[in-house]
Amino acid sequence: MRQRHKPWADDFLKENTHLIVPDATEKKGKWHTLFGNENPIHLEIGTGKGQFITGMAEQYPDVNFLGIELAKSIIVMAGSKVKEAERTNVRLLHVDAADLKELFTENEISVIYLNFSDPWPKKRHAKRRLTYHTFLEQYQHILHPEGQIVLKTDNQGLFEYSLASFSQFGLKLQEVNLDLHNEEDPVNVMTEYEEKFSAKGQPIYRCRAQFP
Amino acid sequence: MRQRHKPWADDFLKENTHLIVPDATEKKGKWHTLFGNENPIHLEIGTGKGQFITGMAEQYPDVNFLGIELAKSIIVMAGSKVKEAERTNVRLLHVDAADLKELFTENEISVIYLNFSDPWPKKRHAKRRLTYHTFLEQYQHILHPEGQIVLKTDNQGLFEYSLASFSQFGLKLQEVNLDLHNEEDPVNVMTEYEEKFSAKGQPIYRCRAQFP
Repeated sequence: MRQRHKPWADDFLKENTHLIVPDATEKKGKWHTLFGNENPIHLEIGTGKGQFITGMAEQYPDVNFLGIELAKSIIVMAGSKVKEAERTNVRLLHVDAADLKELFTENEISVIYLNFSDPWPKKRHAKRRLTYHTFLEQYQHILHPEGQIVLKTDNQGLFEYSLASFSQFGLKLQEVNLDLHNEEDPVNVMTEYEEKFSAKGQPIYRCRAQFP
Repeated sequence: MRQRHKPWADDFLKENTHLIVPDATEKKGKWHTLFGNENPIHLEIGTGKGQFITGMAEQYPDVNFLGIELAKSIIVMAGSKVKEAERTNVRLLHVDAADLKELFTENEISVIYLNFSDPWPKKRHAKRRLTYHTFLEQYQHILHPEGQIVLKTDNQGLFEYSLASFSQFGLKLQEVNLDLHNEEDPVNVMTEYEEKFSAKGQPIYRCRAQFP
């Protein structure tokens, strides 16, 4: 998402290192220490403006949440939201998700959320999709053996691709939902994007997959 | 599908044993002999009125097609359609699909089509769904090692269930399509049911899955 330049972003990052972790690679293998407890760690890749991670952190106080977001002007918005919610079980990482093994050690993460990721619709861009097999290989490395990937999107092409990609990698689909908002799911926390598109009547797809 | 009783059905069955195979279990392991060639055999479970299997037989003359249909008043309609099309690469089986191992030997079938199968929406009826694991175990037995299952349905619940069931059984999804008729697919042959529901704007789901 391209956003207007925010002059206050640099200051915000400097003043909120307790929320937006600097030098994230140094925390590899020590994220539990940072949170000060042994609760499971859930990771959202592409946190955006932070509505999902903040809502989840409120709903699940016994889970630690990490959110990765590369865009500086966006992550500060997520940071503001977390700050306002006064949650201690969330940290944000202003890094590229390209090399997760630099950020996390084996088994360190329990759940990975991919919310409304860039669909990269052109076939020649398939390797940039967050469900391309090179990413799945990284997820497998950092996920706990019983860990899961939860994917939500409104993009038909990305969802079709991801189901096949998960399956071909050997992941087991635990749940597939082709119209999430048409059913009662009191625990679904919406992203900003989801709220907007679902209001337009667009179906939202979700699946939950687990490494064997 | 419940249909009006057809008094001519018994006569049709007697007079068309070259199309609607009597004593199908005796053909187990000898289906190639019946067709008089070594072409691959594709099996449709729940052939209905026969539009799909007839259309496929016309489109793929080098494939042998077998269609299973339990309802007598329906299979004779499929029989009439095949007869009219003068296809020699189709045979119909007026049997229950409950025990496929009685009908086919190992590796005898190359593709299995499940078209608009009964969704059995109630959870307690899950074991009747044609994608329940006990059926998958039978498909695996009769399918060629590189054989595939092709599932088409307009039923969201059945499709969601089937994707998860395939995946959990270890099948690999080769293709997932969440809106078949929104794309150009010149080789898709429609069933009667598909034609009707697609015309109403209902999305048609399709997937192709392969045993590992």
